[in-house]
Amino acid sequence: MQWYSVAALLTVLTSSQGILTTLSQTNGKYDYDYATIPFLAEVFKLAVSCLLLWRECKSSPLPKMTTDWKTVALYPIPSVIYLIHNNVQFATLMYVDTSTYQIMGNLKIVTTGILFRLFLGRRLSNLQWMAVGLLAIGTTTSQVRGCGVASCDSLFSAPIQGYMLGVLSACLSALAGIYTEFLMKKNSDTLYWQNIQLYTFGTIFNLARLVVDDFRGGFENGPWWQRIFNGYTITTWLVVLNLGSTGLLVSWLMKYADNIVKVYSTSMAMLLTMVLSIFLFDFKPTLQLFLGIVICMMSLHMYFAPSKMLLDMPLAVKPDEEKLIEDSVDRRTHS
Amino acid sequence: MQWYSVAALLTVLTSSQGILTTLSQTNGKYDYDYATIPFLAEVFKLAVSCLLLWRECKSSPLPKMTTDWKTVALYPIPSVIYLIHNNVQFATLMYVDTSTYQIMGNLKIVTTGILFRLFLGRRLSNLQWMAVGLLAIGTTTSQVRGCGVASCDSLFSAPIQGYMLGVLSACLSALAGIYTEFLMKKNSDTLYWQNIQLYTFGTIFNLARLVVDDFRGGFENGPWWQRIFNGYTITTWLVVLNLGSTGLLVSWLMKYADNIVKVYSTSMAMLLTMVLSIFLFDFKPTLQLFLGIVICMMSLHMYFAPSKMLLDMPLAVKPDEEKLIEDSVDRRTHS
Repeated sequence: MQWYSVAALLTVLTSSQGILTTLSQTNGKYDYDYATIPFLAEVFKLAVSCLLLWRECKSSPLPKMTTDWKTVALYPIPSVIYLIHNNVQFATLMYVDTSTYQIMGNLKIVTTGILFRLFLGRRLSNLQWMAVGLLAIGTTTSQVRGCGVASCDSLFSAPIQGYMLGVLSACLSALAGIYTEFLMKKNSDTLYWQNIQLYTFGTIFNLARLVVDDFRGGFENGPWWQRIFNGYTITTWLVVLNLGSTGLLVSWLMKYADNIVKVYSTSMAMLLTMVLSIFLFDFKPTLQLFLGIVICMMSLHMYFAPSKMLLDMPLAVKPDEEKLIEDSVDRRTHS
Repeated sequence: MQWYSVAALLTVLTSSQGILTTLSQTNGKYDYDYATIPFLAEVFKLAVSCLLLWRECKSSPLPKMTTDWKTVALYPIPSVIYLIHNNVQFATLMYVDTSTYQIMGNLKIVTTGILFRLFLGRRLSNLQWMAVGLLAIGTTTSQVRGCGVASCDSLFSAPIQGYMLGVLSACLSALAGIYTEFLMKKNSDTLYWQNIQLYTFGTIFNLARLVVDDFRGGFENGPWWQRIFNGYTITTWLVVLNLGSTGLLVSWLMKYADNIVKVYSTSMAMLLTMVLSIFLFDFKPTLQLFLGIVICMMSLHMYFAPSKMLLDMPLAVKPDEEKLIEDSVDRRTHS
């Protein structure tokens, strides 16, 4: 499979995730325990990965699987980062309103670019850096609250702690992605074996959360295994399947593409969700949504289009630019 | 003088123009006849150009001046285009509200790019086209009406004629600029002689407007020459001087740079005016203004930065990109 087909599929599924989650609510509330969703999605991903590994093992030669403790010990770390991230996220929302929080979430795009450079040592051209910045600006533009929105003054009026936690949150979110990419590309183990390790720890951490919730709630509604499917409908199951599938696609992208591809994919999904919401939920289309979409499309083209397509000026070339191109050819030829 | 110094000066003066005009009002109204401003500015530009030509004529060799009728007859055309443009503008405002009109004004950036390509035959790279598009998007973003603005529904709810007139207006405005550039670069006449022809017709057309206004008003306030300086203050004179100076700078740019430089200059001026208004007129800074400024800065960098600065990826280059650069070098070397 080509990375762009996987990225396109991830966009569609991530976008469906938001819509399915909204559709699974009754009068804006969840009839089921939302914490069960990521747990079941982890179980689903684990089951699919086991099945795929088993199929691969039947064929020869046997797939590569590193099983020494030192390597396996690296796999719970993403779960640990997500755990910290969730708590920071919770703390941030005590200081800032949800609109500001949503806008600050776009910072994740930029922090991913920075950590991509710092920790994975991947270099981006000046133009690609601009494209990453533009993607963050495009998604932010689409979220600018238009006129007619009731509360206005709360945006960016939070105490400084709120913004510091927001930046920390963006860094942790990026770190989880960058670390996973590092893990998946670290050795040539088969993807399914890497997935099994990742999702086993994911399942354990999510299970722990359900248990902790039970203790916090004083077992009011009984232990988690008795109430896990309470309030589930077909749509709830689709939410689980969809979340599991996006997880599997992200793993694939981390191994065979990279974090920037994932960031583009999920940002486009956010815009797609907003467009679909116009038709599904009578969401009012705004000028800023249109502008945001155009900005993100340009960013996509700037990042991924081959440089010769971006710079070619057929037939007529201005004299000073001709010189520039020559310089640039000289430099590249000599380096 | 370098074109970028002239462009920077034009940005500052264009920005001052908006601020001076606001300062020249008393309680939001003009105490003077606004139609006298462009007339006096034309006279000022004509006087300055005559002075500069006279100085140049004293030195030898004599500057080049084409005086045949066929060439001179081309110089009233910009004034004619502006006259039509003003009427279309007036008609547009009968269909659309001022906010929509302001937003549609950004279309001028794109139409200038298109006419620049079509009529002057100048080629832009894919990246430069994107930069021009981004500039229009950036200025539009900065103008998105935030929450808290009273009337919301009027934006983009005008009849189709309004939009068609808006597009026509953007085309005419671009055409005037493109035609002036064609005129200034048509031959190697001295700039001052070209200016004199341009401003003579400009003075005549503006004078005609004053006379027509007199007839329309039934000479209620007396003929224009009796009331021309009524209500003038120091600030009003600064508005005249400032408008005249920006006109001279635009002429210089049309001859020695191009329309795209001018468009960048005036777009940046619009953003600068908004920033200065925060301090001068208690204009409330918005997130969309900040985003618009960042977008326009990126567009500026994309358009004017040398391609090798945009694309260089020192040291580590990904294998497939290495191939791309080789391809591109091959192509450029063989062509």
